[in-house]
Amino acid sequence: MKSEVLLDVRYYETDQMGIVHHSNYIRYFECARNKLMCDAGYPIEKCEADGIVFPILSVNCNYKHPAKMGDKLRCTAEITQRPLARLYVKQEVYNQDGILCVEGETVLGFLDAKTRRPMRCPQQIYKMLGFD
Amino acid sequence: MKSEVLLDVRYYETDQMGIVHHSNYIRYFECARNKLMCDAGYPIEKCEADGIVFPILSVNCNYKHPAKMGDKLRCTAEITQRPLARLYVKQEVYNQDGILCVEGETVLGFLDAKTRRPMRCPQQIYKMLGFD
Amino acid sequence: MKSEVLLDVRYYETDQMGIVHHSNYIRYFECARNKLMCDAGYPIEKCEADGIVFPILSVNCNYKHPAKMGDKLRCTAEITQRPLARLYVKQEVYNQDGILCVEGETVLGFLDAKTRRPMRCPQQIYKMLGFD
Amino acid sequence: MKSEVLLDVRYYETDQMGIVHHSNYIRYFECARNKLMCDAGYPIEKCEADGIVFPILSVNCNYKHPAKMGDKLRCTAEITQRPLARLYVKQEVYNQDGILCVEGETVLGFLDAKTRRPMRCPQQIYKMLGFD
Repeated sequence: MKSEVLLDVRYYETDQMGIVHHSNYIRYFECARNKLMCDAGYPIEKCEADGIVFPILSVNCNYKHPAKMGDKLRCTAEITQRPLARLYVKQEVYNQDGILCVEGETVLGFLDAKTRRPMRCPQQIYKMLGFD
Repeated sequence: MKSEVLLDVRYYETDQMGIVHHSNYIRYFECARNKLMCDAGYPIEKCEADGIVFPILSVNCNYKHPAKMGDKLRCTAEITQRPLARLYVKQEVYNQDGILCVEGETVLGFLDAKTRRPMRCPQQIYKMLGFD
Repeated sequence: MKSEVLLDVRYYETDQMGIVHHSNYIRYFECARNKLMCDAGYPIEKCEADGIVFPILSVNCNYKHPAKMGDKLRCTAEITQRPLARLYVKQEVYNQDGILCVEGETVLGFLDAKTRRPMRCPQQIYKMLGFD
Repeated sequence: MKSEVLLDVRYYETDQMGIVHHSNYIRYFECARNKLMCDAGYPIEKCEADGIVFPILSVNCNYKHPAKMGDKLRCTAEITQRPLARLYVKQEVYNQDGILCVEGETVLGFLDAKTRRPMRCPQQIYKMLGFD
């Protein structure tokens, strides 16, 4: 399963180097993941209302090409493995010229909001993400 | 009652104009207000644990002089009126040379976290802030 | 002249009150203003390349209704007066139900990037914004 | 060479999970690195004035324990290898109880601001960081 979201660079996301500050790609990654959950029919705010929380376990991010003000970014999230205890998401950010700006991976867990304990990927999410 | 907090400008707070992005002063204001609550002996996270929430009603902000990377900012919060249904906070940000960068005002309300309804300033806050 | 931009609330824009942090509306305001400049055919990055900088002189913001994760916000920017030395922009943020979340005003100046001195509204901007 | 900076969690850094949003640790990392440059006697704004820019090449970040409002974080940056074409920085964030919240690594390059081309670690930085 793979989704993408188009995001215009925002002025406040630039820094005094004149490029998008590197921390913002981590945020673009999240936008793409949340788009994927929407596309799967189970938006993050509904998950949380149902008592499922997705703690971030790790992020890595390789910077290839700087994004700039005026750029229109295509940010992708792709689930690359069956989600068991962890959800592995491959993430990419391309600019309007198709140049890969950043690629990385986010790993998430599943947490029961009530007990605050880790759990395996809930069945409904497993199915919605296209696994069975 | 008046408090202040010293904050170093952070790189990600700058924008491609080479100065601190204007939205960040609103955040510095908040840091100064939270410092005031700490100084009063009632930090914001304790307020919230006690079921008191402070919704922001309005902010205004006048920009006088840009802050830059390397600046050490002195951010102040001063309660200028007896808090009844609203808390009026005068806010200033100075740089290390004593130049006024930004001044403004934040107005907050008081909300009962359980009922989600506005309330008057709780007695304990009223007293802690030096009124009686 | 009036423009608008549609923005999905992003997860990182929420705070532990469970709503969009108040500082982010100042950033939404900026997105709407930059959209207005794009609509006028003179995007902000082109202005800056031409040596025109828009320092923010003041912002005020009245909070009416909290935005939440999952909301789709309509953010507007409207120029309400002939821009002479200052540009007055009325700003509003509505949610997907047409409820006004925030309204305010941003006042900007015009700065010559080379001399770093304030100037009157450049002729090309004056015209592009629909004045003559 | 190793430096550390103490940072209070700021309210706007929390998200609706009630913890510090994961993207902010990338920003704490940067604060620690900039503190290291200050401790070395060569603050980042001076580097940039001298025409040396530090592009971020990669970041990775492992989340161990969530930081919360009220926490006082100790953020460290340690240079673990001789900087040749790249600067490897080990980064850790501890809370006030000495619990490791996040650990990771940032890799930076060196860029000549004029030519916009990568270069080897400039001699003055190499020495200031304690190598020779």
